[in-house]
Amino acid sequence: MKKIIPFFVSFLLGLGTYAQENVNFSTQKEIISPEINPDGSVVFRLDAKNATTVKVQCDCLPEGGSLTKGEDGIWSLTTKQLNPELYSYSFWVDGVKAFDPNNAFLIRDVSTVVNVFLVGGGKADLYKVTDVPHGTVSKRWYTSPNLKSTRRLTVYTPAAYENNQLTYPVLYLMHGAGGDENAWMELGRAAQIMDNLIAQGKAKPMIVVMTNGNADQTATPGESSEGFVKPIFMRPATFSGMTEAAFGDIIQFIESNYRVKKEKASRAIAGLSMGGMHSLVISANYPNTFDYVGVFSSAMLQPKDSQATVYSDFTNKLKAQKNNGFKLYWIGIGNTDFLFERSNEFRKLLDSLEFNYQYHETKGGHTWSNWRDYLSEFAPLLFQ
Amino acid sequence: MKKIIPFFVSFLLGLGTYAQENVNFSTQKEIISPEINPDGSVVFRLDAKNATTVKVQCDCLPEGGSLTKGEDGIWSLTTKQLNPELYSYSFWVDGVKAFDPNNAFLIRDVSTVVNVFLVGGGKADLYKVTDVPHGTVSKRWYTSPNLKSTRRLTVYTPAAYENNQLTYPVLYLMHGAGGDENAWMELGRAAQIMDNLIAQGKAKPMIVVMTNGNADQTATPGESSEGFVKPIFMRPATFSGMTEAAFGDIIQFIESNYRVKKEKASRAIAGLSMGGMHSLVISANYPNTFDYVGVFSSAMLQPKDSQATVYSDFTNKLKAQKNNGFKLYWIGIGNTDFLFERSNEFRKLLDSLEFNYQYHETKGGHTWSNWRDYLSEFAPLLFQ
Repeated sequence: MKKIIPFFVSFLLGLGTYAQENVNFSTQKEIISPEINPDGSVVFRLDAKNATTVKVQCDCLPEGGSLTKGEDGIWSLTTKQLNPELYSYSFWVDGVKAFDPNNAFLIRDVSTVVNVFLVGGGKADLYKVTDVPHGTVSKRWYTSPNLKSTRRLTVYTPAAYENNQLTYPVLYLMHGAGGDENAWMELGRAAQIMDNLIAQGKAKPMIVVMTNGNADQTATPGESSEGFVKPIFMRPATFSGMTEAAFGDIIQFIESNYRVKKEKASRAIAGLSMGGMHSLVISANYPNTFDYVGVFSSAMLQPKDSQATVYSDFTNKLKAQKNNGFKLYWIGIGNTDFLFERSNEFRKLLDSLEFNYQYHETKGGHTWSNWRDYLSEFAPLLFQ
Repeated sequence: MKKIIPFFVSFLLGLGTYAQENVNFSTQKEIISPEINPDGSVVFRLDAKNATTVKVQCDCLPEGGSLTKGEDGIWSLTTKQLNPELYSYSFWVDGVKAFDPNNAFLIRDVSTVVNVFLVGGGKADLYKVTDVPHGTVSKRWYTSPNLKSTRRLTVYTPAAYENNQLTYPVLYLMHGAGGDENAWMELGRAAQIMDNLIAQGKAKPMIVVMTNGNADQTATPGESSEGFVKPIFMRPATFSGMTEAAFGDIIQFIESNYRVKKEKASRAIAGLSMGGMHSLVISANYPNTFDYVGVFSSAMLQPKDSQATVYSDFTNKLKAQKNNGFKLYWIGIGNTDFLFERSNEFRKLLDSLEFNYQYHETKGGHTWSNWRDYLSEFAPLLFQ
């Protein structure tokens, strides 16, 4: 390679004018941040000579943290040893939010964009891209006659789907309020979790369909004809019941367009928060359709005085669901989740109906950390 | 909707603990930024009470710009009327790079992450998601026997591909150094451009295959087993000739896995910068394979003393390409591009061989603005 270095240098000289198309405004140094130490501690660093305070807001530091300025003007903070996890963080420099210019990896969560990093080991190894066969991830548009719109969804087809003639079971996987058809792929690491579980023989090969559960939105912000609009947490149609009422359009689309097993034993539906409610409402309203239901950090959340048909007469719908039979009704929630009591109330209702469910109580709250865990626990139970 | 507002409020109250999983560190106000005025001027705003200087680095402001502090502590700058375009920008607050916390849309360009916004009208309307039939965008892995790796590519299949039995022509579309299989989708707006051109009847429905042209990289950073590594501009295998030598693996994969027309008249290859060189080298090394070649902002760029077979005896390869015949050899470059002279040299070589090409000289330099234009000009010329 040595011979070509002079050429590289001359090529690179040209790049001052174009690599990022702009003159560099900054004297910020290129430094390593975050640095993940072998012991699992993490160093955050920021070059901010003129700053008075530099703080880091990280789900790895529930109380937050203040960086300390070094003699070279580089601020830094070293965490204690962190548990395996996909973490997110932002810097705050003199009260202004700043991302980490040395970390090119960011994920949007509702309208907030955060840097991310991964501390591997344990459960977090499921979140890594590993050298196993990978599924295909497609962004595809379908027409919903009930919603009178053409809408986008994300479809994960497992490795080898394209190279055989097998039919597959389907997991419909639903996001929470403020999310969209991208959320499970990005914050949820669903493709990595499924690739790894399937390669390890822990989950059956399955198609995972990640829908957009905001009935008044056709696609994730920036990917619809609304343009680059600011994502919001509660859209007007949230809890309108329209997502649940129109869900048959999605089943119809998937079963017409993919090689899937079109039977109850090969359909699962699960979701987090708003999507957990969608899952329990849809599975009760489409009787004898799903043998597997996952309710993550959720409960019956619809407004008590809602007139939507999908929410009405719900106890009788649950009775019918019980009488029709199913293989698994899985409820996962963290014991500090703000919906913990609502989840308990829902379980009491199920108990009163002698409706059988599997209960998975964990630590923690209403977090993607828990939702990634719940998917990792739930997927291996499906289609066995 | 009024009835359910109290429920929303109670639900929202719970969100302090979870919406973005973190306490808010900031007193930054929610403001509108960027605001695109009807006349095409744009207002940048940032709440930064304690800052001494706030600058904006934007390809809409080649000289940069300084925001002015208002009485409320909100800094702002209004541009003059901007031409239709997808623009990118960053803030610099007292020398520290900050993104715009009121704009959730960011795109990575090599290792730099920038906010983006779109000023519509004219050519930029092609970059918008509009209410037309949308193609499917898939991230798919293929095995390259020649590179001895399993690698990712992006495949755009046009609307209706899944709903008929037609066969389609294929455009192979290649990124520049520092890019990857995501670059044309994100910075290049390729899906939007193709959706719109096809819907307007200006381009034939075609499959667009966006490869990863870094022979030593299996997928975009963060999506390969390298993990969240910092993206770099020149990887060790850049200009090694391996991408070109192994390109047959990609053609083989696409023609075995998609309903495509397997003939010269239905194959096009184009790329920008490094990818432009890949396109001209591949089209010369795979004789009688491509009827359409697009060379955007590029030339022969390989190291002069390279020993790679794909670069050797190149004049004779061009002669053979000429003698075999082709329908279109399209060269586009900006007159301030740092490769402008290299492009001229390459055209002189072609002229000396009486090798027929179409030359499209534009203003501007080595920019995504030009590359989006070139794709918009080139795609309608294909497969007619």
